[in-house]
Amino acid sequence: MSDRETSPTELTVGTLAERGLLQRLQAFCPREIVGDDAAVLPLDSDRVLVVTSDMLVDGVHFSDRSTSAADAGWRAAAANLSDLAAMGATPWGITVALGLRSDQPVTWVEELYAGMSACLQPSGTQIWGGDISRSETATIAITAIGQAPANRVWQRSAAQPGDAIVATGIHGASRAGLELLLHPESNLRLETAACERLRLTHQRPKPRLDVVPVLRAIAAESRTAAADSSDGLVDAVWQLCASSGVGARLDATAVPQSPDVIRYVGTELALEWALYGGEDFELVLCLPPELAQQLVAAIGGGAAIVGEILPGSEVVLMQANSTRVLTIDKTFQHF
Amino acid sequence: MSDRETSPTELTVGTLAERGLLQRLQAFCPREIVGDDAAVLPLDSDRVLVVTSDMLVDGVHFSDRSTSAADAGWRAAAANLSDLAAMGATPWGITVALGLRSDQPVTWVEELYAGMSACLQPSGTQIWGGDISRSETATIAITAIGQAPANRVWQRSAAQPGDAIVATGIHGASRAGLELLLHPESNLRLETAACERLRLTHQRPKPRLDVVPVLRAIAAESRTAAADSSDGLVDAVWQLCASSGVGARLDATAVPQSPDVIRYVGTELALEWALYGGEDFELVLCLPPELAQQLVAAIGGGAAIVGEILPGSEVVLMQANSTRVLTIDKTFQHF
Repeated sequence: MSDRETSPTELTVGTLAERGLLQRLQAFCPREIVGDDAAVLPLDSDRVLVVTSDMLVDGVHFSDRSTSAADAGWRAAAANLSDLAAMGATPWGITVALGLRSDQPVTWVEELYAGMSACLQPSGTQIWGGDISRSETATIAITAIGQAPANRVWQRSAAQPGDAIVATGIHGASRAGLELLLHPESNLRLETAACERLRLTHQRPKPRLDVVPVLRAIAAESRTAAADSSDGLVDAVWQLCASSGVGARLDATAVPQSPDVIRYVGTELALEWALYGGEDFELVLCLPPELAQQLVAAIGGGAAIVGEILPGSEVVLMQANSTRVLTIDKTFQHF
Repeated sequence: MSDRETSPTELTVGTLAERGLLQRLQAFCPREIVGDDAAVLPLDSDRVLVVTSDMLVDGVHFSDRSTSAADAGWRAAAANLSDLAAMGATPWGITVALGLRSDQPVTWVEELYAGMSACLQPSGTQIWGGDISRSETATIAITAIGQAPANRVWQRSAAQPGDAIVATGIHGASRAGLELLLHPESNLRLETAACERLRLTHQRPKPRLDVVPVLRAIAAESRTAAADSSDGLVDAVWQLCASSGVGARLDATAVPQSPDVIRYVGTELALEWALYGGEDFELVLCLPPELAQQLVAAIGGGAAIVGEILPGSEVVLMQANSTRVLTIDKTFQHF
C-alpha cells in the first residue's frame, strides 16, 4: 500500500501472524460476537443468524498446480459451509466477491461458479450475488449466512472437563491428496484408485452439514462445543481448549486415519498429517461421553472419540510408549 | 491463475467487462434475488434481510497516492452502507475479509479498522469479524447486512413513467476531490478551505442512510425505485431505466452541483463530472412527483428533482440549447 520503506522496528503483518492480528482487530468488534467460527446474531425468540466470511487467495489457498477453477470454487464454498456446520447452523445463502485478473478466461470464472454451485447444491444453499473487481491477484471472498435455533448454537467456549472429544471422520487424507497433486512421482506404493480417492478428498472436501441434524436429534437440549478441523485436528482442539479455559488429552491410536495414507507415507508421517495436516473440514465436538458415543454410532464413517477434555490448559497426546505435550507451532498459519 | 497463454480467440474477463460478466454469473443465482444493489431475503412476515458485498482492491479502488488506510476503511464501509441505503434498508452489521501483504505495517490494518468504525458509528452498525489472509495485493472485501420492513424495499425495477427522479445531493464533487488529490498543482482558482471540502467529499463520502427514515415517514406505503450513484448519476439512472423497462429525461440545469467544482474546472467539465464522475454515494430515487417534492423539501442540502421517467428506453439529457442521448460508454467500468 505504501511505497515508503517499512522501518526495521515497525511491526508488520508478517511478524504478528494471523492469530495475533485477529486478536488486535477484535478490539473493534463487539466482544460477545467474535472469536468463533462465525458470528451469531439474534433474529427473534426462536432463531439466530449465523454469519461467516472466508477469503481464498491465488498462490496461498489455491494455485494452478493443484487446483482447477471448479475445485477452487468448491473449496471456497466448502470452507464457508464448514464454518456454519461448526456452529450447528443450517446454511441459507452466500455472497461472492471476486478479484480477477483482466486476462483470466471467462470460462475460468464460470467454472469457478459451477464448482461453488456443485458444493452448495446438496444443502440447497443459494448464491445471492456479490461483486467482481479487477485485481492483480485472483481472490475469492465468500460470506455465508445460515440460521440456527436460538440457544442451540455450538460454541468453541462450551467445552467442560469430562467431555469426550469427537472427530467426525478421517484426518490427514486431505494433506496426502495435496502431496499427490504436488508430487505425483512420490507415490510408490498406492494403486491408482487409492490415489484418486486421496486427491478427491483434497479437491472436493465435504462440509459436515450432515452432522448438525443428527446431533440435534440425539441431544435436543445439550450443550455442545465445536470447531471445524480446517486448520488441523490439533489446532481445532487447541482452539476449543483456549476458548473454554480447559485442557485435553488426545489418544493417537484413536484418531481416525486412512489406511491409504499410512501405506503411502508410513505410520509416523501419517500421524503428523492426521494431527496437523489441515483441510480435512471435519468437525471436532466436545460433549458428554454418553452423547458422544451415540453421535459416533449415528454418523459412522470413521467418526470416533479421540480424547477427553481435562482441567488445566495443556493438550497432551498419548501414544503407545510416550506422552507428548502438543503445541500449535506446527499448525497452519496464513502469514 | 493459469500459466498457459490465453488464446487470441478466448474470451477474457477484460474483454467482457464487469457488467457482461455479472450477467453471465447471474445464471447461477436465483433470478428473483440478484440484479439490484443488494439481495433481499424474507425473514418473517414483517421483515426482510438485505445483503450486499463489495470488494476494494489496491491500485483499483484506492491507492497510497490518494488514500490513507483510514480513508480506505471508511470508503469500503461507506460503499456497502450506500448499497443498503439504496434498498431502503437499515444496516445491522458487516463482516470484513482482508487480503494483506506480509510487509504491511500492523498500524495500517488498525487504521483501516479505525476508519471503518468511524464510518459505521453514526448508524450503530457493528463489525462482526471476518477473515484475514496473506495476499500480494491488498484487498478489502466487506459484506453488509441490513433489515427492512417487508414490502417496503426499494428496488431498481420499480420505476414507472411519470415518476420524478430525485438526486439526494451534489454530484461531481467527489471526482473533483480525487483530481485535487492526484494533481494538487491543478488548482489555480480555489481557496484552501474549498479544496479541503472537495478532498474530504472524496475521502469521506457519507452514505445517505438518513434518507431512509425520511422517505418512509413521507410515503408509508408508496412504491419507490432507487439506486446509489457510486458509479455516477447517469449510470444510476441508466440502471433504473434498464431494470424497469423505461426511459428518462435528465435536466442538466437541475443537477445539483458544487460552485467550487465549477470554479475549479469550468461549467463544461463540471457537468461531465456531475453526470459521470461517480463515487458521490448519493441516492437516485424515482417516485410520484408530489412525494418527490415532499422528499426534496424534507432532506434539503442540495437534493433536487433532476428529471422524469418516460416511456421508451432512452436516457435523454436536456441542456439549454441542445438535447443529448446519453449512453453509459463513459461510465465507470471496473475492468
